[in-house]
Amino acid sequence: MNRNIKISSIKALAFDVFGTVVDWRTTIIRECTLLGKAKGIHVDWAQFADAWRAGYAPAMDQVRRSELSWMNIDSIHRMILERLLIEFEIKGLTESEKYDLNRIWHRLRPWPDSVRGLRRLRKRYVLATLSNGNMALLVNMAKNAGLPWDCILSSELSKHYKPDKEVYRTAADLLGLGPEQVMMVAAHKDDLNAAKTVGFKTAFVVRPLEFGPAGTPDLSADPSFDIRAKDFIDLATKLEA
Amino acid sequence: MNRNIKISSIKALAFDVFGTVVDWRTTIIRECTLLGKAKGIHVDWAQFADAWRAGYAPAMDQVRRSELSWMNIDSIHRMILERLLIEFEIKGLTESEKYDLNRIWHRLRPWPDSVRGLRRLRKRYVLATLSNGNMALLVNMAKNAGLPWDCILSSELSKHYKPDKEVYRTAADLLGLGPEQVMMVAAHKDDLNAAKTVGFKTAFVVRPLEFGPAGTPDLSADPSFDIRAKDFIDLATKLEA
Repeated sequence: MNRNIKISSIKALAFDVFGTVVDWRTTIIRECTLLGKAKGIHVDWAQFADAWRAGYAPAMDQVRRSELSWMNIDSIHRMILERLLIEFEIKGLTESEKYDLNRIWHRLRPWPDSVRGLRRLRKRYVLATLSNGNMALLVNMAKNAGLPWDCILSSELSKHYKPDKEVYRTAADLLGLGPEQVMMVAAHKDDLNAAKTVGFKTAFVVRPLEFGPAGTPDLSADPSFDIRAKDFIDLATKLEA
Repeated sequence: MNRNIKISSIKALAFDVFGTVVDWRTTIIRECTLLGKAKGIHVDWAQFADAWRAGYAPAMDQVRRSELSWMNIDSIHRMILERLLIEFEIKGLTESEKYDLNRIWHRLRPWPDSVRGLRRLRKRYVLATLSNGNMALLVNMAKNAGLPWDCILSSELSKHYKPDKEVYRTAADLLGLGPEQVMMVAAHKDDLNAAKTVGFKTAFVVRPLEFGPAGTPDLSADPSFDIRAKDFIDLATKLEA
């Protein structure tokens, strides 16, 4: 832990969600496997999940560069899904089944430590999401997974996607706090670096399985972050919650 | 209850907060009485509370008519407070005491039925605030009073004050719902009438003591609202939650 950090000055924690709080990959593989069994569709669902997720950053970047007008994540997920249904030769889904498939992202399951860690942290801090997911997605996910947020905040509120600085600034403003009173919690260094530029404190939580057993996420030490935690329980302990 | 209402089509409830969920008057009188005792200030605190609340609508209307640029409720409350400190000849408060006094609005206490009713309603519906209070105020209030919201929504997100239609439209959009899937819950008819114009369903909850024992709020029957409830327990029952 960064020795210069004054824990008492931190009032709120802002959480990245996909990959940091919830395990998108396992949830998608599981739900799609069930759908495949029910509909007789034979696909490598791990590959499908990875392709769905991989399409997300480029689409957001197009919005960030104004090549696409503002679209929320539900729409981005659906746009990618339509392409993948062709690429993976998935046929015979009704519109209602496609709609439901796209809503998997509203039903992502938390990592095993997430709810317990958040419950501890919530006793001391204001807990907010700060995700590129849209508000409705985050609300439904929280209700479905029992995530105890004090406040749902989303990129949607500033019509910018992380890592655009507007997202972090808007969040601090809406929480009525200075940026130095907010700590960004994420498993992704680009998110933390952008938050740091705006003046947020930063906590890097490693999620070695985000991209599956064969995935190689960047887990390397980075002393520029205030805290490094191995999960939300460890984070709660380090933040004295 | 309006016989035409289809409860199964309602997905989210949007709550007015000041007066509907929390009892601003009793909380302000109580906290100010304690402050007065501690500081030797002798004031009719009921009159003070009523004057503070009375200043709120005209100030918001100035924002709504663009005579004042956007100010959040914390700033509006502070602006009114400065005037009242002079009018009521309240002297000797430090800046920190004035700041804390203004934050009473973050610590308002719920009506006795609020938390229990919300807990029941939350099992069936998405529960959101839809208040002119700013996000930080609503987040702090929820944490302090144990209000189990799924989502904090505020006029602040559209930079319009209720009853401007933008507030209701923005809320439905952020919840990913059509207006007819959202029910506005309020103790104030102007709020419900505006919500109805946008297509929301409406629930009128009577709060006969909002303005104190001598207050005369409009509690008259209005068949144009879908539901009339005597408190949140009654609302939960009528909404089959």
